[in-house]
Amino acid sequence: MPQYDPARLFGLPTPIVQAPMAGVSTPELAAAVSNAGGLGSIAIGASTVARARDMIERTRALTPRAFNVNVFCHAPAERDEAREAAWIAHLEPLFAELGAAAPTSLNEIYESFLVDDEALEMLLEERPPIVSFHFGIPSADRVAAFRGAGITTMATATSVDEAERCERAGVDAIVAQGIEAGGHRGVFDTDVLDAGLTTAVLVRLLVRRTKLPVIAAGGIMDGRAVNAALALGASGVQLGTAFILCPESAADASYRANLKSDRASATRLTSVISGRPARGMVNRLVEHGEAPGAPEPAAYPVAYDAAKRLHSAAVQRGVHDLAAQWAGQGAPLARELPAAELVQMLLEEMAS
Amino acid sequence: MPQYDPARLFGLPTPIVQAPMAGVSTPELAAAVSNAGGLGSIAIGASTVARARDMIERTRALTPRAFNVNVFCHAPAERDEAREAAWIAHLEPLFAELGAAAPTSLNEIYESFLVDDEALEMLLEERPPIVSFHFGIPSADRVAAFRGAGITTMATATSVDEAERCERAGVDAIVAQGIEAGGHRGVFDTDVLDAGLTTAVLVRLLVRRTKLPVIAAGGIMDGRAVNAALALGASGVQLGTAFILCPESAADASYRANLKSDRASATRLTSVISGRPARGMVNRLVEHGEAPGAPEPAAYPVAYDAAKRLHSAAVQRGVHDLAAQWAGQGAPLARELPAAELVQMLLEEMAS
Repeated sequence: MPQYDPARLFGLPTPIVQAPMAGVSTPELAAAVSNAGGLGSIAIGASTVARARDMIERTRALTPRAFNVNVFCHAPAERDEAREAAWIAHLEPLFAELGAAAPTSLNEIYESFLVDDEALEMLLEERPPIVSFHFGIPSADRVAAFRGAGITTMATATSVDEAERCERAGVDAIVAQGIEAGGHRGVFDTDVLDAGLTTAVLVRLLVRRTKLPVIAAGGIMDGRAVNAALALGASGVQLGTAFILCPESAADASYRANLKSDRASATRLTSVISGRPARGMVNRLVEHGEAPGAPEPAAYPVAYDAAKRLHSAAVQRGVHDLAAQWAGQGAPLARELPAAELVQMLLEEMAS
Repeated sequence: MPQYDPARLFGLPTPIVQAPMAGVSTPELAAAVSNAGGLGSIAIGASTVARARDMIERTRALTPRAFNVNVFCHAPAERDEAREAAWIAHLEPLFAELGAAAPTSLNEIYESFLVDDEALEMLLEERPPIVSFHFGIPSADRVAAFRGAGITTMATATSVDEAERCERAGVDAIVAQGIEAGGHRGVFDTDVLDAGLTTAVLVRLLVRRTKLPVIAAGGIMDGRAVNAALALGASGVQLGTAFILCPESAADASYRANLKSDRASATRLTSVISGRPARGMVNRLVEHGEAPGAPEPAAYPVAYDAAKRLHSAAVQRGVHDLAAQWAGQGAPLARELPAAELVQMLLEEMAS
């Protein structure tokens, strides 16, 4: 078993990080993972500041150990009325089928942390042990503010360039997210050609390029894969899909059933749900969004507003095929266990 | 260091397989790798039967150890005059720039092993120790003929389905090729939606699904990556890009220079050179082939005929930007060493 060095991962007893997953990770899940010796995470990027504060306080109430709070650092959406109208029009038949009215306009449903001063203030007051950034990084000033408040920071990188930017901004660790990872791809700039590096290749490139701890993310589902990532030089591993079936996650019955079905074997990277590339199981929403002749989706997270409204109308009518059900390429290997037992199983597999 | 079990890889002293690479791997390269304790490979799919026989006999003269002979098992090309004419027309400006005439028609430059009785006969006479299949698998009868002749067989799989087909056909080992691998992607049927599994995920899925030895291929460039693949349960590893800079390879000066440059950091999977998806460094040939409005490439290997004629005309005029320069995502990590030293370095890295 490759050597795990806690000093390279903030003194955590194990190298297991549970990925932040907006809509799936919960204070209960995060606390269970942290209590089991891993690093649990909550995702607050999609929440109001008040709700986010609640989530942090709830997590803190459930675990005395370190936990990670993730925020979205995307470039604020470029609004484009014509593009958004075309996107609404493309989705309109799906609303009509449900007997629901399509929206007349869309909103930028999350404010980017890059400009969300209220969220920054809240985090500096609440002082969670760790804050992580996805889709980009805040200014060096903001990162320094976290450091000054005693908060450790991590950021997602999908390329060597992005990792170098993370290092220059002063973050404490890099989450190396490969193309096989479920959920939203953390690329900084979606206009730049994406080399689509796999987790293994990216980790190897980053370990040789940066002194910062590199946390491997994407495709890791069991103890052997954890060992493989450590053998590549990763200081830790981040697992998302692996935790979705835990009872503590917020995944609904349809999501869980699909994850346990053949659908888990055919994930796809698509921008048609949220406006930004994300990997998940394929359903009617994805196929409709990608139909030949479909217009370009609205920008992120404006398109996501449309998808969420559609899903909401669908669920009210018992229709579950218009959901965002993120999952990585390793999804067929997901296990259904309480989070603490899953962490324990991962450790046993690592040692066997 | 994870346990390597020679019994799982035909008794080879090390888990290192040098990938067959048509146009790059040579009898000298293969022999050097085999003599160093790995499994060297030659690729005969692009050669005439007479030339292939020479290559096998040359390899045999240079090493008493096992070596692997790779053949292409693609579905014979569906000829389509209009599509091919459109493709020639698309490439015509590149020929014109060189002052060369574009071809008036194209040929299917390699016969698929699926139908090449002469090649089968030659292999059953020559009896190389190992024969491997790429792009598909021969009939169970042909695989049985190899077994009857004492020849061990391996086949590339990019998915669980393909691996199951390999197993049913009776091959002895599976080469699990991930999306990060350089060169041609071994998918059986290019009309089927490609899930693009990474090496790590594919190896994990296959190790749990088949009793056959699984050889991890794609993105592996150094001893740590070898250990990672073995930790996932692979019985061996196949390295292609890692061996291109060896003096024994047939890569020309331009290919070598590009592999040592920034171009190695931005590989792309493209069908525009050969008609089938293949990963390589990006150059003018790739960009022209993928230009907006470009027609669909001719089928494989008919498009490859056009590309090779273009490259030939270009090289005669000192132009090197119209070449097929295959490379995997790990290309920035390539080392320039004699093959035997590279194998030795890999083993030292594995043990350190």
